[in-house]
Amino acid sequence: MNERLKKLQAWMKENEIEVSFLTSTENVFYLSGFYSDPHERLLALAVFQEEEPFLVCPKMEVNDVKHSGWSQEIIGYSDIENPWEFIHSAIAKRIKAVGKTAIEKEHMNVERYEQLLKLFPNAVFISAEEKVRKLRMIKDAKELKIIEEACALADYAVEFGCSEISEGKTELDVLNAVEYALKKKGVTEMSFSTMVLTGKNAASPHGNPGSTKIKKGDLVLFDLGVVVDRYCSDITRTVAYGDINDKQKEIYDTVLKAQLAAVEASKPGATAAEVDLTARKIIADAGYGEYFPHRLGHGLGISVHEYPSMTETNNLVIEEGMVYTIEPGIYVPEIAGVRIEDDIYITSNGAKILTQFPKELQIIK
Amino acid sequence: MNERLKKLQAWMKENEIEVSFLTSTENVFYLSGFYSDPHERLLALAVFQEEEPFLVCPKMEVNDVKHSGWSQEIIGYSDIENPWEFIHSAIAKRIKAVGKTAIEKEHMNVERYEQLLKLFPNAVFISAEEKVRKLRMIKDAKELKIIEEACALADYAVEFGCSEISEGKTELDVLNAVEYALKKKGVTEMSFSTMVLTGKNAASPHGNPGSTKIKKGDLVLFDLGVVVDRYCSDITRTVAYGDINDKQKEIYDTVLKAQLAAVEASKPGATAAEVDLTARKIIADAGYGEYFPHRLGHGLGISVHEYPSMTETNNLVIEEGMVYTIEPGIYVPEIAGVRIEDDIYITSNGAKILTQFPKELQIIK
Repeated sequence: MNERLKKLQAWMKENEIEVSFLTSTENVFYLSGFYSDPHERLLALAVFQEEEPFLVCPKMEVNDVKHSGWSQEIIGYSDIENPWEFIHSAIAKRIKAVGKTAIEKEHMNVERYEQLLKLFPNAVFISAEEKVRKLRMIKDAKELKIIEEACALADYAVEFGCSEISEGKTELDVLNAVEYALKKKGVTEMSFSTMVLTGKNAASPHGNPGSTKIKKGDLVLFDLGVVVDRYCSDITRTVAYGDINDKQKEIYDTVLKAQLAAVEASKPGATAAEVDLTARKIIADAGYGEYFPHRLGHGLGISVHEYPSMTETNNLVIEEGMVYTIEPGIYVPEIAGVRIEDDIYITSNGAKILTQFPKELQIIK
Repeated sequence: MNERLKKLQAWMKENEIEVSFLTSTENVFYLSGFYSDPHERLLALAVFQEEEPFLVCPKMEVNDVKHSGWSQEIIGYSDIENPWEFIHSAIAKRIKAVGKTAIEKEHMNVERYEQLLKLFPNAVFISAEEKVRKLRMIKDAKELKIIEEACALADYAVEFGCSEISEGKTELDVLNAVEYALKKKGVTEMSFSTMVLTGKNAASPHGNPGSTKIKKGDLVLFDLGVVVDRYCSDITRTVAYGDINDKQKEIYDTVLKAQLAAVEASKPGATAAEVDLTARKIIADAGYGEYFPHRLGHGLGISVHEYPSMTETNNLVIEEGMVYTIEPGIYVPEIAGVRIEDDIYITSNGAKILTQFPKELQIIK
């Protein structure tokens, strides 16, 4: 039994939960080591306080499960078999009656829920999500190593993107060139839709890359991430194309100051709110408070947005092992948009910065 | 009120359904004209037998809904507001008591379902999905025009891909070049992960593109699709790089014969099973029955897989206005994999073929 399952079982005992029945690709992967997106087909991991857990998947994936390292029971079903019957008897073999059951209420659909209700009419269903999110929040050494690899590729992407900037190229030209360069390095998946924004487009936190041409005196914002072995990175850098004006510089310097301060404030014992407010105060004091409309950052791992949520109201205490982004931004409509984002890992001494492309203003000639 | 909503309302009256509460991006788009993927936030369309429908979305999307052409009520909610309270009062304004309610049971999650159960404790929930799938199955002229555009881009992609084939290039080299060429044409989304497979890799119906190098005497299989205005295309072509052997040719000719016959059999009044079996019989008679392990095809539209499902057991009657794929394949391990796929539209006279890249064997020199 792996350490993650043991932690889940400890939580189940504490809360008298007899079965955890997990169904999302991400949580099944986290707890079992097996990754699969079976689309409309059922994937499930059933965990018990003491008894052997079992994994349910389409029959054609049974061998993949074995190769993934899962050594407990596997239940494969074909397209003409009913997996719920197998689940019912596998559970009945393990426990006498199903009472409190933890499911992913934000993931499981009503059709499957009705199947469970039919099979276990006396069950009481509670949510497993909050607990698994908290488990996933603390990364182990292996996870950290993978995220570091994903961050190194994100650094490379920004560096390559900068080398592609020239007069008259569009946002999409640069974006396509960056993604193509990554594919040549073997990257098959980005963490989210890559953003390359310039001029007024970058001055909106929700801009979409398009046919806007890059011209001298513009800022160019890159926001992108790379998936390595199922883990995501996420970096933002804003660079200048040629000389920029004093107002743009002031905005850049303010964001950078806020970003550095929030990294500095990130250490075990601080709260997410304190870290967010460290950056927020610097931006507000410089007169740009209303132009920083989003949270400071978010946890990062198998999902590109996970716990902790770095907001000004979240009193969650920062712990060693967390990985999250610090990405303050200032967006003044028609004037400039600047965001600087790092991924950091919390050590006992404070933040280890995982994204390493320079943050002092880069001027592309 | 648009024609699609009127058809849904007619079904609701016939089945005494008081509310349809739809929540998937695709079905809300189909019925309202508004497309949005609000991720974890709620998007919903409530439809009544007589009363005005309403659409629920995050507040920041309200303007987008207006611009999409939706002229009925819009309920926007901010991140600190509870959309369920708004929904409750909007429904209460329209009908006295909520009885039979149609929801998307395969889409709605348990968390939201529990909200509905709390708001409407006397409601009985049935599935809306089967009905909306049937509505979506018959395409109108505007939908056909968009799918035709998506198919023309798919044709271009295969043509471009063929021009990229040369000794020593890998599957991923060709794949990346094809997607890059499409991006330059303004394509921002593929229907699914593009496949370029060669040699033994193509001989599995589930191969993944990788670093396998293309060499003379190999078959190269392209399977790809392009999204245009939210509608998908889906084409497969298998081409020869240099001279291929007699066995490969025999397999190719068999698939082509089966494909042409199934296109010919596609006309109003035939059943999906008859069309599937037309192709399946030709392949079986040639001795390759066991090497054609999948259904003949699938409907195509807002989703890349939708109704009708072209299987040997589906007695659904083909009707004018349907759009589906015809994609027989033969995969002999270690020997050859060939699949040929068209998207077709059913007219009163039979199939109109939407994908137009040649199907006679193309030999790349």
